[in-house]
Amino acid sequence: MGHERESAHALWVSAHPRSDSLTARLRDIGVARLREDGWGVDVADLYAERFDPVLVDEGGADVRAEQRRLLAADLVVLQFPLWWYGPPAMLKGWIDRVFERGFAYDVPDPATGRNRKYGDGGLVGRRALAVVTAGDRAGSIAPRGISGDVEDLFWPLLHGTFWYTGMEALAPHLITDVHGIDEKEADRLGHVLADRLGAIRTEAPIPYLPMTDEFYDHSIALHPHVTAGLTGGAAHRRPS
Amino acid sequence: MGHERESAHALWVSAHPRSDSLTARLRDIGVARLREDGWGVDVADLYAERFDPVLVDEGGADVRAEQRRLLAADLVVLQFPLWWYGPPAMLKGWIDRVFERGFAYDVPDPATGRNRKYGDGGLVGRRALAVVTAGDRAGSIAPRGISGDVEDLFWPLLHGTFWYTGMEALAPHLITDVHGIDEKEADRLGHVLADRLGAIRTEAPIPYLPMTDEFYDHSIALHPHVTAGLTGGAAHRRPS
Repeated sequence: MGHERESAHALWVSAHPRSDSLTARLRDIGVARLREDGWGVDVADLYAERFDPVLVDEGGADVRAEQRRLLAADLVVLQFPLWWYGPPAMLKGWIDRVFERGFAYDVPDPATGRNRKYGDGGLVGRRALAVVTAGDRAGSIAPRGISGDVEDLFWPLLHGTFWYTGMEALAPHLITDVHGIDEKEADRLGHVLADRLGAIRTEAPIPYLPMTDEFYDHSIALHPHVTAGLTGGAAHRRPS
Repeated sequence: MGHERESAHALWVSAHPRSDSLTARLRDIGVARLREDGWGVDVADLYAERFDPVLVDEGGADVRAEQRRLLAADLVVLQFPLWWYGPPAMLKGWIDRVFERGFAYDVPDPATGRNRKYGDGGLVGRRALAVVTAGDRAGSIAPRGISGDVEDLFWPLLHGTFWYTGMEALAPHLITDVHGIDEKEADRLGHVLADRLGAIRTEAPIPYLPMTDEFYDHSIALHPHVTAGLTGGAAHRRPS
């Protein structure tokens, strides 16, 4: 990450309409843990800050402010309840508006003139973690579960957003079966999250392949000999 | 669909900030074709109608109005530019707010008491089509393309939203390489779309499996003998 322990900064973005939500409780526990560990943490509660998620024109003072928050971060956490198997519109719109072309992706490389993306880009040097709460049962978000595999479900965010803009994508922190849980269980879930955050600097990210000629052809599909025979997200990872 | 040709209605929902966009042009061509074929078409231009996509509390007069529009439709078209491999926040929020529990899903079946979803639900009897424009090259949205396979990319919408609420999901109408196209090419793309719409009443939908005990267990994962050995979206289809 190129930073000493003392200088690490995190941006924690959350999107839930209620301040008494499980999302808020887990955020408070997670942010407290990061601060105990020496992180500077900037909390972006998009509902509380009344962020406008509707992209009309590019730019705007609010977009510039969010971009500065991103640039200051070594770790970006996006926390949200799973709505229709994706982020709430509030968070989707934060991405739509803030991750602008020329800022987050298609940043020209002065050496080659090539537009930087997929493993390179405006947000390179950062790692990104999605923290997601879902009402689904654990077994339903699985390779043969009715909701699909967790990394397939989050492919647009993990590969198409985090990795696309140069950030290292960490495996999503998915919490299932959240309907009707009590305070004790919420605290337990918070401690599990806090434990993970305690080791987040050194956790291995998903080993997605960079968009280079070594792996991809001109249509930007994998060369036949790369991860031969695989399709889906697994095809785009370095073989373990 | 249980309707004579004379009585068929479509709801065409589009989400693009510009009225001179390719989205608007394709919508106008598509809507004209449906009307020529005898459909009644309700056009919901979410930006022009200034829909509020931010879910705070459930319900609201605007949500009830959108729900009536859905209930009146035999065919639901959701048209959008692909932003970060998903719908713009404006459209995502229309789904977040309008597809309420008890309206679109988890509608109790009076006979069994079971909550209806995945092949059943509040929107059963309708078919749904996503019409999507993307800057990506065609080869990059493919089983080994860097953006992933089209039906994997749209899994949250096709299976997790359309099918979840009881609608038959049609294969997405994806248009790639849209940056910098001229008027002639836009018209050609419009005609391809219109041709498809001309046969949309009888097009075979994606044959997703219903959420019944025949196919899924109590964790809502597929029984081992169903589509044995498959994972991903293909596992949840009737074998052809």
